Amino acid sequence: MSSVYHGNLTVSIFGQSHAPAIGVTIDGLPAGARIDMDELGMFLSRRAPGHSPLSTPRKEADLPEFLCGVVDHVTCGAPLTAIIRNTNTRSQDYDTLRDVPRPGHADYTAQMKFGGAQDVSGGGHFSGRLTAPLCIAGGICLQLLRREGIEVFARIASIAGIEDHAPFTAPVSNKPFPVVTDAVGGQMQQAILQAKSDGDSVGGVVECIVTGCPAGLGEPMFAGMENRIAQLVFAIPAVKGVEFGAGFAAAAMRGSENNDAYCMENGGVRTVTNHCGGILGGITNAMPIVFRAAFKPTPSIRREQQSVRLSRMEEVPLCVPGRHDPCIVPRAVPCVEAAAAIAVYDALLEARKFTKTARE
Amino acid sequence: MSSVYHGNLTVSIFGQSHAPAIGVTIDGLPAGARIDMDELGMFLSRRAPGHSPLSTPRKEADLPEFLCGVVDHVTCGAPLTAIIRNTNTRSQDYDTLRDVPRPGHADYTAQMKFGGAQDVSGGGHFSGRLTAPLCIAGGICLQLLRREGIEVFARIASIAGIEDHAPFTAPVSNKPFPVVTDAVGGQMQQAILQAKSDGDSVGGVVECIVTGCPAGLGEPMFAGMENRIAQLVFAIPAVKGVEFGAGFAAAAMRGSENNDAYCMENGGVRTVTNHCGGILGGITNAMPIVFRAAFKPTPSIRREQQSVRLSRMEEVPLCVPGRHDPCIVPRAVPCVEAAAAIAVYDALLEARKFTKTARE
Amino acid sequence: MSSVYHGNLTVSIFGQSHAPAIGVTIDGLPAGARIDMDELGMFLSRRAPGHSPLSTPRKEADLPEFLCGVVDHVTCGAPLTAIIRNTNTRSQDYDTLRDVPRPGHADYTAQMKFGGAQDVSGGGHFSGRLTAPLCIAGGICLQLLRREGIEVFARIASIAGIEDHAPFTAPVSNKPFPVVTDAVGGQMQQAILQAKSDGDSVGGVVECIVTGCPAGLGEPMFAGMENRIAQLVFAIPAVKGVEFGAGFAAAAMRGSENNDAYCMENGGVRTVTNHCGGILGGITNAMPIVFRAAFKPTPSIRREQQSVRLSRMEEVPLCVPGRHDPCIVPRAVPCVEAAAAIAVYDALLEARKFTKTARE
Amino acid sequence: MSSVYHGNLTVSIFGQSHAPAIGVTIDGLPAGARIDMDELGMFLSRRAPGHSPLSTPRKEADLPEFLCGVVDHVTCGAPLTAIIRNTNTRSQDYDTLRDVPRPGHADYTAQMKFGGAQDVSGGGHFSGRLTAPLCIAGGICLQLLRREGIEVFARIASIAGIEDHAPFTAPVSNKPFPVVTDAVGGQMQQAILQAKSDGDSVGGVVECIVTGCPAGLGEPMFAGMENRIAQLVFAIPAVKGVEFGAGFAAAAMRGSENNDAYCMENGGVRTVTNHCGGILGGITNAMPIVFRAAFKPTPSIRREQQSVRLSRMEEVPLCVPGRHDPCIVPRAVPCVEAAAAIAVYDALLEARKFTKTARE
Repeated sequence: MSSVYHGNLTVSIFGQSHAPAIGVTIDGLPAGARIDMDELGMFLSRRAPGHSPLSTPRKEADLPEFLCGVVDHVTCGAPLTAIIRNTNTRSQDYDTLRDVPRPGHADYTAQMKFGGAQDVSGGGHFSGRLTAPLCIAGGICLQLLRREGIEVFARIASIAGIEDHAPFTAPVSNKPFPVVTDAVGGQMQQAILQAKSDGDSVGGVVECIVTGCPAGLGEPMFAGMENRIAQLVFAIPAVKGVEFGAGFAAAAMRGSENNDAYCMENGGVRTVTNHCGGILGGITNAMPIVFRAAFKPTPSIRREQQSVRLSRMEEVPLCVPGRHDPCIVPRAVPCVEAAAAIAVYDALLEARKFTKTARE
Repeated sequence: MSSVYHGNLTVSIFGQSHAPAIGVTIDGLPAGARIDMDELGMFLSRRAPGHSPLSTPRKEADLPEFLCGVVDHVTCGAPLTAIIRNTNTRSQDYDTLRDVPRPGHADYTAQMKFGGAQDVSGGGHFSGRLTAPLCIAGGICLQLLRREGIEVFARIASIAGIEDHAPFTAPVSNKPFPVVTDAVGGQMQQAILQAKSDGDSVGGVVECIVTGCPAGLGEPMFAGMENRIAQLVFAIPAVKGVEFGAGFAAAAMRGSENNDAYCMENGGVRTVTNHCGGILGGITNAMPIVFRAAFKPTPSIRREQQSVRLSRMEEVPLCVPGRHDPCIVPRAVPCVEAAAAIAVYDALLEARKFTKTARE
Repeated sequence: MSSVYHGNLTVSIFGQSHAPAIGVTIDGLPAGARIDMDELGMFLSRRAPGHSPLSTPRKEADLPEFLCGVVDHVTCGAPLTAIIRNTNTRSQDYDTLRDVPRPGHADYTAQMKFGGAQDVSGGGHFSGRLTAPLCIAGGICLQLLRREGIEVFARIASIAGIEDHAPFTAPVSNKPFPVVTDAVGGQMQQAILQAKSDGDSVGGVVECIVTGCPAGLGEPMFAGMENRIAQLVFAIPAVKGVEFGAGFAAAAMRGSENNDAYCMENGGVRTVTNHCGGILGGITNAMPIVFRAAFKPTPSIRREQQSVRLSRMEEVPLCVPGRHDPCIVPRAVPCVEAAAAIAVYDALLEARKFTKTARE
Repeated sequence: MSSVYHGNLTVSIFGQSHAPAIGVTIDGLPAGARIDMDELGMFLSRRAPGHSPLSTPRKEADLPEFLCGVVDHVTCGAPLTAIIRNTNTRSQDYDTLRDVPRPGHADYTAQMKFGGAQDVSGGGHFSGRLTAPLCIAGGICLQLLRREGIEVFARIASIAGIEDHAPFTAPVSNKPFPVVTDAVGGQMQQAILQAKSDGDSVGGVVECIVTGCPAGLGEPMFAGMENRIAQLVFAIPAVKGVEFGAGFAAAAMRGSENNDAYCMENGGVRTVTNHCGGILGGITNAMPIVFRAAFKPTPSIRREQQSVRLSRMEEVPLCVPGRHDPCIVPRAVPCVEAAAAIAVYDALLEARKFTKTARE
């Protein structure tokens, strides 16, 4: 495993779904930064399960305990560690799945990688629950970014193929179902409930925007903004694609159409369109960063599927018991914001190394 | 800049388009591995320009000189460095562009990042020419992977919106225009030539497959196979999206449809479908890795575009002179293979650390 | 701060002396390795304070709680996190020291680095207490190394200038005062008690040996065995020097004297002497690794010292209250073993990447 | 091998002694910094061989060619690569040594590590010649540091046991034999010439001072100033020990003696003594950084030594042919400065990330 993001910040995520705790250590935060714990709690609650009929009925308090790195809610320069105790564990649900991997899950690949030593309970380290520590780290970065005038906000762009075509320019995080067009959101929720009643699940696309970035962030070739964001967003389970700006649609455009013409606006340079998603050559151009992440449908479904019994190497039918989200996309929205916030804050720290530069 | 990939291999890419040379250093290759220089040369020639009316008329020999790391074509354990001299430089083409950034290029963002000190000639370090050293590193990894029974091959999946729907299961790299369906490839070439005659450009999608991977490669959360491949593929200029398996299409599927059922085949575990693209939980499942990368249309076009003159902060029209590819997708095919090969070989080295493990 | 060691293992240490907890996350351990918790507890107890009149009277249980990464004491492949709760905190001891930095401590430098936001209580993240998580990580590596036939053991080589000249070839860790020559150890203990009664402190040198290493470990130029060990050993507070083999004494030798002649012994290649400390060109030669670390005397002393009051920028006398070790060298012995074990196990993992190598 | 230093700067060193070239790539330099090539050349010439009867008669121009990263001697933000061609190679000298490793050299350990594939010619990648690219990187950092008011200078502190006890406070790099006390230097040179005439060699100690550092540099636990400097200095072949401030001597002091009392001087905080070598808790305190590196005597000597013939596993006598330095210490002085400069500049970049910090 490599659950450590090594950048200007080091973010080390640990825990399994049914271990005593999950958590995160962030090394490299500035000292003297106040963390608004209420705001962080509210951010985390957007990811927490059990809030609506659309998600799993599991209840998780998910309140982080800060073990170190802060004194009276202010960072002290030492590594910050926060943990969340696991309380609502029902490991017996998973016992029968040890030998029969669930299609679409990491059961089989973890078995191959760890030779039977992996912790299968509740999905172990592969559980979506591990996005909680990602959101702690991201939630802190979001607060630090906001103080620099940088905002990160995401929305549900589509679920089950139902797309919200409305442009996305302002936060919708205050909505219980974070879409721009509520009517379309209603259709999405219907699709989720229908899938649930069918013992099935649906996926979707989350779109994320970062506003207020200065031009000049990002270090190509391997740590440009696209590389950084992609590396972090693919840490969220179920993400199978990431695209920036026009993304895959740009592949069907002509250059004259896709190129973003420069213009002057209020004395500053801007672009007329934003097909590049705010990133050229891996570096921000001060237009909003725009990207989308595709989430596959939740692999855990009640409907019978075909699997194999590894101990006998024979095909067997499988019905996954337990309580599962029919769609994790609504809860994934803050996770995408968290991943983006870490990437952008990391790039911001990098850029600052050169704020005062030795030049003749 | 961060043109160093830090993994089990360290790949450090350097050079600007019109500097004396470009090149790459690879640290961490196994000692005693023979590099087939002819094979490497043939691989690099697939990326080289000047071979057809579809690409830029610039001629580049692009034969790498190995400065160190090999003795008689066999790796000696020391870092391997190969360089390519830049000979065909025409810097005066770019002089007028210093103040007027080309839409869709890194001119403006590099200006913001480096405060005017960047090397604009020929695109500097942002030039597509920098994919040549990436291909040297990737070409070496391809040879090492093949000796382990792992093959990496890519094809053009679409250009200018023209899609080749044929399944991709065998290499097409021997074709001058690497598509599965030649008739569709003919249409694509027509679209490229039409764009060229219009002074415009087109983009496309490259699909890449990795076969023969053992199950168990990849280190989630931040170095899973998707994270690794995405980080490397976004190092190729013009890539704006990456998706694995069903990718964005999976977001519109139901779980019962997207989940890949397990089955037995010749005594081994396989999946009936491969919507996950050979990766579950960030770890390979021994099915082929499948991913696609979206390339935007080449930003350099002859047609007039709107830009700004930075010295006067005023809008000005711009016609980009010089010789440019109307479509870089055909030449990008080996670059995608190279990026994938580095990612997979890196994961293979990682997995080997645990081949002989201390267990009771 | 950068309390993360990035190697093949990632070891992330967190906590402040008087925060709720201290701890460590290890990412990259092999799955399926049983950790002997009793053995680990015994190893940690060698570092724990309060065991003798030679050390601080503070009592610390220092029993780690494993939050994740193990199932029934067997590693599961996910990151392993262990924490130790801080219980015996007396922050008021430190309140008066905020403005008047203790000579020899990090009070002043942390103040300069973190602008007053640092946690001064109990030394914060700079406390010797932070070697407990280092010992957890090192103690686990020691167990893994032993299963490969590699042993790491250290001894007190000198305290207060009193040197134990006896050769060091076998473990002394079972002794309450880990010296080879007990009579010399008695003198050392006298010197410690004398310093204590004088309100003063003494330093010393710890010598460490690693036996059973295969030849070929270490990756020069920057991750050779000396680089790795030095980087890790300097993480222990109070270490001011590290030397390998003959070390500084080699600087006064002639080549004919210092060079270790090769010989045959039991069919294998050995060296007649071991002035190189088992390392040539940064790589192990299968002779024992030998190194020494110099520890300065504990900076916290009762005797009056001169300091400055930062708020008024004036010189003031200072007497440090509280309970302190008059000599931390005895307790540092397992810390040095821990640092060495992490370095060697990390190099062992690195070497394994190439155990099965692609060669023609 | 791991000849890549990964910090805020990435320094990647490549080459073997008798390969076509050696060189270095530096990624992460600020853009817009002018490199004074004359000054760099003079710095490199201090390391170059062939200047005096004290060193090897090999002649090396060692003038670096800059392949990229600079435009008209000004950094452009892209990775900087400089190479030095190898011209004076005499590989036949080394042919007979393939099977019979030289005592004190890396011949045997490299053989064990690389399984016979290593490049033995001229010492391969283990050659002292590889300190030339280290000096290129360090020489550039020295220039950047000087513009910040930070100076790095080293001197010979002892050779063959002959010590120069004079305090070291000002540069001696303009002297052909860089000692403070020329009379002592004369004795050292006599000792070198005597060793040479005996077919033998001598070692020594280099002391290095860094002045002008602001307080607050260094990131403990693993990237404190001692960790950083030690990791870099041990990259220089023949270094077997590193100590800071009073170093090993501190181990014999009492706390009341070793602690550096604070005092006020010209309105600023200073310490009366500097036993800590300018570093407390891994962080600079604005006093000069002071450290010493111990160099073993050159292992290549003419005198007969005992080795083994690996192909027959038998003991054999060995006389090393070729031309060798009887003492590499004088030429090592700029190498130590280079290593220190990289470490300090790297820490300076790190500290700048937090110059403008998000605080309430």
